[in-house]
Amino acid sequence: MIYFRSDYSQGAHPKVLEALAETNFEHTDGYGMDEHCTHAAAMVKALIGRPDCDVHMMIGGTPCNVTIIASTLRPYESVIAARTGHIYVHETGAVEGTGHRIVTVEGVNGKLTPEGIEKACMEHDDEHTAEPKMVYISQPTEIGTIYSRQEMIAISEKCKEKGLYLYVDGARLGCALTSREADLSIQELARLCDAFYIGGTKNGALFGEALVILNPGMKDHFRYMIKHQCGMLAKGRLIGVQFEALLADGEYGLYFQIAAHSNAMAEKLTNGLKDLGVEFFCDSPTNQIFPIFPPYVLQKLEEEFFFYQWAPEEARGIPVRLVTGWGTKEEEVDRFLAAVKEAI
Amino acid sequence: MIYFRSDYSQGAHPKVLEALAETNFEHTDGYGMDEHCTHAAAMVKALIGRPDCDVHMMIGGTPCNVTIIASTLRPYESVIAARTGHIYVHETGAVEGTGHRIVTVEGVNGKLTPEGIEKACMEHDDEHTAEPKMVYISQPTEIGTIYSRQEMIAISEKCKEKGLYLYVDGARLGCALTSREADLSIQELARLCDAFYIGGTKNGALFGEALVILNPGMKDHFRYMIKHQCGMLAKGRLIGVQFEALLADGEYGLYFQIAAHSNAMAEKLTNGLKDLGVEFFCDSPTNQIFPIFPPYVLQKLEEEFFFYQWAPEEARGIPVRLVTGWGTKEEEVDRFLAAVKEAI
Amino acid sequence: MIYFRSDYSQGAHPKVLEALAETNFEHTDGYGMDEHCTHAAAMVKALIGRPDCDVHMMIGGTPCNVTIIASTLRPYESVIAARTGHIYVHETGAVEGTGHRIVTVEGVNGKLTPEGIEKACMEHDDEHTAEPKMVYISQPTEIGTIYSRQEMIAISEKCKEKGLYLYVDGARLGCALTSREADLSIQELARLCDAFYIGGTKNGALFGEALVILNPGMKDHFRYMIKHQCGMLAKGRLIGVQFEALLADGEYGLYFQIAAHSNAMAEKLTNGLKDLGVEFFCDSPTNQIFPIFPPYVLQKLEEEFFFYQWAPEEARGIPVRLVTGWGTKEEEVDRFLAAVKEAI
Amino acid sequence: MIYFRSDYSQGAHPKVLEALAETNFEHTDGYGMDEHCTHAAAMVKALIGRPDCDVHMMIGGTPCNVTIIASTLRPYESVIAARTGHIYVHETGAVEGTGHRIVTVEGVNGKLTPEGIEKACMEHDDEHTAEPKMVYISQPTEIGTIYSRQEMIAISEKCKEKGLYLYVDGARLGCALTSREADLSIQELARLCDAFYIGGTKNGALFGEALVILNPGMKDHFRYMIKHQCGMLAKGRLIGVQFEALLADGEYGLYFQIAAHSNAMAEKLTNGLKDLGVEFFCDSPTNQIFPIFPPYVLQKLEEEFFFYQWAPEEARGIPVRLVTGWGTKEEEVDRFLAAVKEAI
Repeated sequence: MIYFRSDYSQGAHPKVLEALAETNFEHTDGYGMDEHCTHAAAMVKALIGRPDCDVHMMIGGTPCNVTIIASTLRPYESVIAARTGHIYVHETGAVEGTGHRIVTVEGVNGKLTPEGIEKACMEHDDEHTAEPKMVYISQPTEIGTIYSRQEMIAISEKCKEKGLYLYVDGARLGCALTSREADLSIQELARLCDAFYIGGTKNGALFGEALVILNPGMKDHFRYMIKHQCGMLAKGRLIGVQFEALLADGEYGLYFQIAAHSNAMAEKLTNGLKDLGVEFFCDSPTNQIFPIFPPYVLQKLEEEFFFYQWAPEEARGIPVRLVTGWGTKEEEVDRFLAAVKEAI
Repeated sequence: MIYFRSDYSQGAHPKVLEALAETNFEHTDGYGMDEHCTHAAAMVKALIGRPDCDVHMMIGGTPCNVTIIASTLRPYESVIAARTGHIYVHETGAVEGTGHRIVTVEGVNGKLTPEGIEKACMEHDDEHTAEPKMVYISQPTEIGTIYSRQEMIAISEKCKEKGLYLYVDGARLGCALTSREADLSIQELARLCDAFYIGGTKNGALFGEALVILNPGMKDHFRYMIKHQCGMLAKGRLIGVQFEALLADGEYGLYFQIAAHSNAMAEKLTNGLKDLGVEFFCDSPTNQIFPIFPPYVLQKLEEEFFFYQWAPEEARGIPVRLVTGWGTKEEEVDRFLAAVKEAI
Repeated sequence: MIYFRSDYSQGAHPKVLEALAETNFEHTDGYGMDEHCTHAAAMVKALIGRPDCDVHMMIGGTPCNVTIIASTLRPYESVIAARTGHIYVHETGAVEGTGHRIVTVEGVNGKLTPEGIEKACMEHDDEHTAEPKMVYISQPTEIGTIYSRQEMIAISEKCKEKGLYLYVDGARLGCALTSREADLSIQELARLCDAFYIGGTKNGALFGEALVILNPGMKDHFRYMIKHQCGMLAKGRLIGVQFEALLADGEYGLYFQIAAHSNAMAEKLTNGLKDLGVEFFCDSPTNQIFPIFPPYVLQKLEEEFFFYQWAPEEARGIPVRLVTGWGTKEEEVDRFLAAVKEAI
Repeated sequence: MIYFRSDYSQGAHPKVLEALAETNFEHTDGYGMDEHCTHAAAMVKALIGRPDCDVHMMIGGTPCNVTIIASTLRPYESVIAARTGHIYVHETGAVEGTGHRIVTVEGVNGKLTPEGIEKACMEHDDEHTAEPKMVYISQPTEIGTIYSRQEMIAISEKCKEKGLYLYVDGARLGCALTSREADLSIQELARLCDAFYIGGTKNGALFGEALVILNPGMKDHFRYMIKHQCGMLAKGRLIGVQFEALLADGEYGLYFQIAAHSNAMAEKLTNGLKDLGVEFFCDSPTNQIFPIFPPYVLQKLEEEFFFYQWAPEEARGIPVRLVTGWGTKEEEVDRFLAAVKEAI
C-alpha cells in the first residue's frame, strides 16, 4: 500500500530521530524548562526576527489552538473562523468545550475575507450577544490554499480596525512559506498577527509545534494555561530537541527543505494528473491536492493507494485528497500517475 | 411615550399580580418544593394530556434553554439551530459557555427545515467532529412566524431519523397557539418533541416559564442541573402561583386570553399598516410584526413611540419591530396607525 | 404549622409588594436598563458613600456569587472559601461549573481567617498548581456569626498582601449590619472589599440582590457576564423597584428595619431558650440560631413547627436551625418557647 | 550534575527508542487507528486478563485523569480525592476546568480511606449540593506509598456501596506492582476498579499511558472525549509502538524490569541513608523517597545533585524528594551516599 493519506503517516524525519537518539541519555529538567527548549525558542526568535516574542513548545496543533483561544478570551467572547476552518471542522468542539463560540463565516477558496470578518462582527450588538474578539485562520488553509501577502495585510488591518486578535494556525506553515505561490515571509507574518505556530507534526517531527506569541497582552501566565488545558509534556525537551534539528540553518534548514520536498511531490502529482486530463476540486499550491476521479478509477486506485475521499460525489466524480510528506518518494508519485493512466 | 418595544415592558397581568398578593403571607418551603408549584405542574400536565411528564418552574427563558441543553448533551455533542435562533443571536454565548457548540443553519422564514437539519448532520463524521444530538427551534420564531403542524411533524420525524432530541423554546408559545394561522395544538406539540417550555415572562407573568420534559431520558437529576446553572429561585413558589393564575380554566384561561389579545392587537396593526400601503420585512401571524418605514416616517414615529429598529436600512426603508402584549390597548394601536398616516 | 424554616418562606414585605403593584402598569425598557434600576443603584451608591462603584440588580445570590467569580478569574485561578462557605456547601458545584476551583479551608466559628488564607495560598507554587486569586466570605456566615471590624480588616489586609480580590456574599447583610454585635458599617465594608452584594431575597424582597463592584478592574463588560451566566431578567426593573422600596430612607429605612426585626425575634428566641436551659450548637447574633434539642423534644416540636435539622445527633441532642424573617411574629416566638417548655 | 529529580528527566529506555526507530518509516493511519496501537491494546488485555476492556493510548497522565473524569461525570457530579492527590495538587485546576469539583479529604500516608470517602459523601445531601460520583486514587500515591490488597478491596467495596466509580491513576503503576511491599496484582487491581492507566512516561517511555476502561458504562464515545479534550496524537502509533516494547513478555518484560530497577535503586538509597542515620519524611517502598537533611548538608548535596525540596523546613531539617528511574545507575546511588557521609 502506498500512502497519500496524510503528512503524519510516518515517524520523524531521520535527522529529527537522530537528534532524539543523541540526546536521549541526557538528564534535564521537565515540562519544557530545559536548555533544548530554550535554545529552540531562541532559534524561532532569530528566524522571525522578534527577540521580544514568547515561544512555547506545544504537543500538538489542537492544544495550540484551544489554549491560545481559552487563554486570550473572556467567557462571553468568541472567535471568528471560516466554516471550513480546522477548529470548526476537525476538533470535536474542543474550542466550545472551553466555553467560547466559533462564529463561522463562508470562506472563499477556504480563506476568510475582510468582508467575512465584517459580517461576523455585525452579529455582535450589545450585552445580549457574544462579542467576537479573535480571528482564526490557518496558513495554508484546510484545502491547501494560501493567503497572499496582500490578503494577509487586509485581514490584519480589518482585525486592528475591529479590535480583534489575529491568530494563525501554522500546522503546515512550512508548505505555505515554500509554496511556488508564496509571497509572504515568516517575518512579515509575525508582524501581521498576534500569535501563530510553526507546525512540526506535519513537517518532519514525531510531534510538536512551536507556538509564537507576539502580542504582549496575550503572554501572561501562558504556561499555567498549557497545564490547565492538559497540554504540558513531562519530557518537554523532546519538542525542543526536534525543533533544534528542524530549525538548524534557519531558512535554509531542514524544516524548509522538508516542506519544499512535500510541495514538490504534490506539484509533480498535480502536473501529472492535469496532463492526464484529471480535474480538481480546488487549486492548491501546497502539499495537499484534491483531484476528482470517476468511481471506477477511484476503485482501482484504492487497491494500491491509501488516501481520503474528501467530498461527496459530484457530476465530475469523487473528490479525493492526496497528501505528500517528508517521506514521500518520487517513485511513489510516478507509480500513482501510472496507475491513474492505466485506470482511466 | 407609547411602547411597542417588547412584551416584557410592563409588570404582570393584574390577575397574576393579584394571585401573588393573595398568597404573599403564606409560608411555604423554598426552591419550588411547595404546593403552588406542584399544583401548577399538575395543571400543565392536564393541559397537555401528559401525566407522565416532568414540569419545572423556571426563572426565565435563557435558563430553560441553557439548562436543558447542558443537562442533556455530553461534552462533545452539539445542538442545531437556525442562525436566527434565540440561543444563537440573543444569549451572549451562554450555550457555548456550558461547553456545547450551536451548529447554525440558514432558516426559511426564520424556521429550521428538515433539509437544514440534514445538512448540519453532514458536518459530523467521526471522533474528530462534534456530534449533533439536539435540535433547537422556537415556536413562534424570532421573527414571529410559526411552524405549521406539517412542518413540525417533518422536523420531528427528521429528528427521530437522526437520533436527535427535539427541544422547542416556547417563550411566546401562547401567541403561536392562538395565532390565526395555528393548526398545531399544544397536545400535539407535546407528542412531537422531547421537551419544551410554556413562556410566562412574555405572556403576562412578572417572570417564569414552565419547562416540560417529556422524554424520560432527559429527566434525571434535572433539579441538580437547575441549581448548578444558577437558575433556582429561593421563593420558587412565585412561579407556581403565577402559572396557577395563568392556567386556571385551561385552554380557555388567562394564558390563552392574553396571547389572543396580543395577537389581535398585532393583527390590527398589521392590517391598518397594510391599508396604508406599508410594506413588511416578513409576515408574522403572532405578536411581533416587522413593518418597514422610510427614515422620515421613522423619525416622526420615534418621537411618540418606543420600539426597536430591527435590521439595517434597505431600499424600501428601515425594518422595525413592533410588539404587543397583555397591556397593549386598542387606542394605542389606533394612535400608532393615525401617526403613520400623518407622517407618510 | 409555624415556620422557622427560612427567611424566604413568605412573599415580600407588604411595602415591597405595594411598590411592585404601584409601578405595575408602567412601561419601561427591559433587562435592567430602566429608571427604577438606575435610581436604586444611586441609592446604593449614596448609602455606601461610593459614587464610583458599579451596582447591578441581580436575580439571586448564586447568580451574584458565580457571575462575579467567573467574570473576575482567569481559567487557572481559584477562589478561597471556608469549607462551610455557601458557594461550597449549597450551590451544587456551580462555581466549578464555570471552571474554577474552590480552595477550602477550615473556618473558625464559620469564619475564614488570615491564617486560613495563608495556608490556602501555600498550595500554589508554580504553573502546575491552580492560583488563588479571590477570597469569598459571607457576612454573616452560614451559621449566623459575623466578622468584627477587626477581623474584616485583617482579612482585607491579608488579601492585599497576597494579591487576592475580596468578595463578600451579603445574602443576609442586613442582619449582620443590625446585629447587636455589629461594629462594621456598610461604608467601611465597602472600603475593605472589592465587591459585595446587598441581599434582598432573604430580607423582604420577592427576590433580587444588589451587587456592588468597587474595584475598577472587576467592572468591565459585567452585563455581558450576567447574560452569559443566564442571570439577566427581562423585566429587570422588578429588582430596581424592590430596592427602591427597601432602601428609601437609607440606614433608617425598611431594609434595616426588617433586618433588625428578624434579629430581635431571633434574640428573643435565643434568650428564651437559654432561660429554659437549652444549649446551642454555636452562638449567632443574627437571624439564624442553632439550639440543640433531645430527640423527644424535637419530635414534639416538629408537630407544630417547621424547621431544619442542622447536623447529626450528638451527645447533647440534635442541632436544629431556626430562622426568623420579616414576617415572623412575636406570638410565634412566644408559642415556640411555650412549646419547648411543655416538651422538656 | 547527577539527577534524582524525577523519573522523566531522561529520554526513553534504549529498547523503546529502538522500537521507534525500527518502525519509523512505516506508514500507518493516524490518531491511534493503527496496528501498533491495536496490538499494544491486546497486550494490555492479555496482561490483565480482561479481553472485554477498552484500552486507549493516551499522551500523558493529566489527559488520562481529566478525560476520564470529564467523560464519566455529569455536570453536577464531583470526584473525591486525597488533598495530596495529583489531580488536586499538580494539575493547575484542569479537572475543575471541565466543570467538576474535586472533593478533598485528608489522606493517611498519602492514601484515601473508606472513612474519608464516607465523610466526603456526607457533604452531599440533595439538589443544592454537588454529588460525588467517582473516587480518584493513585497507585502508588504522590508520596510513594502503596495501597495494600486489603486497602484496595476496602476502597473498592466502599465505592460500590456508595455508587461511586473507582479510578486509579497509575503514573508509576510499575513501581507499585514491583515494590517489595506489593501484594496486589494488576489483574486484581483491574477487578477492583472501573478504570486505571498503566503509566509509560515515568517508566521508560518518551511519553504515553495506556488507559484501561473496564466498566462498560464508561466506554461510550471515549475517542470523541479524547479529541474534545485536545489529547489525541496525530502520530498515535508512537504510543502503541512504545507499549509494544514495554509490554513484550508480559509480567516478565521490560515494563516490569524498569520498575523493579527503579525500586531497587531507591531501596539502596533508603537503606544507605538509614545506615547513615538519616531520617525520613515518610516511608516509601517505591521509587520516590523523602529523606530529611539539615540545611548545611542540603547545601553541599545541591552542588553535585539535582533534586526537589519537598516540604518546608521542620525541626529535623528539610525534607527532599529523590526519584530514581530507568537510567539511574548504581554508581550514582553510591556517589550520593558517599556525599551524604562526607557532608554530615
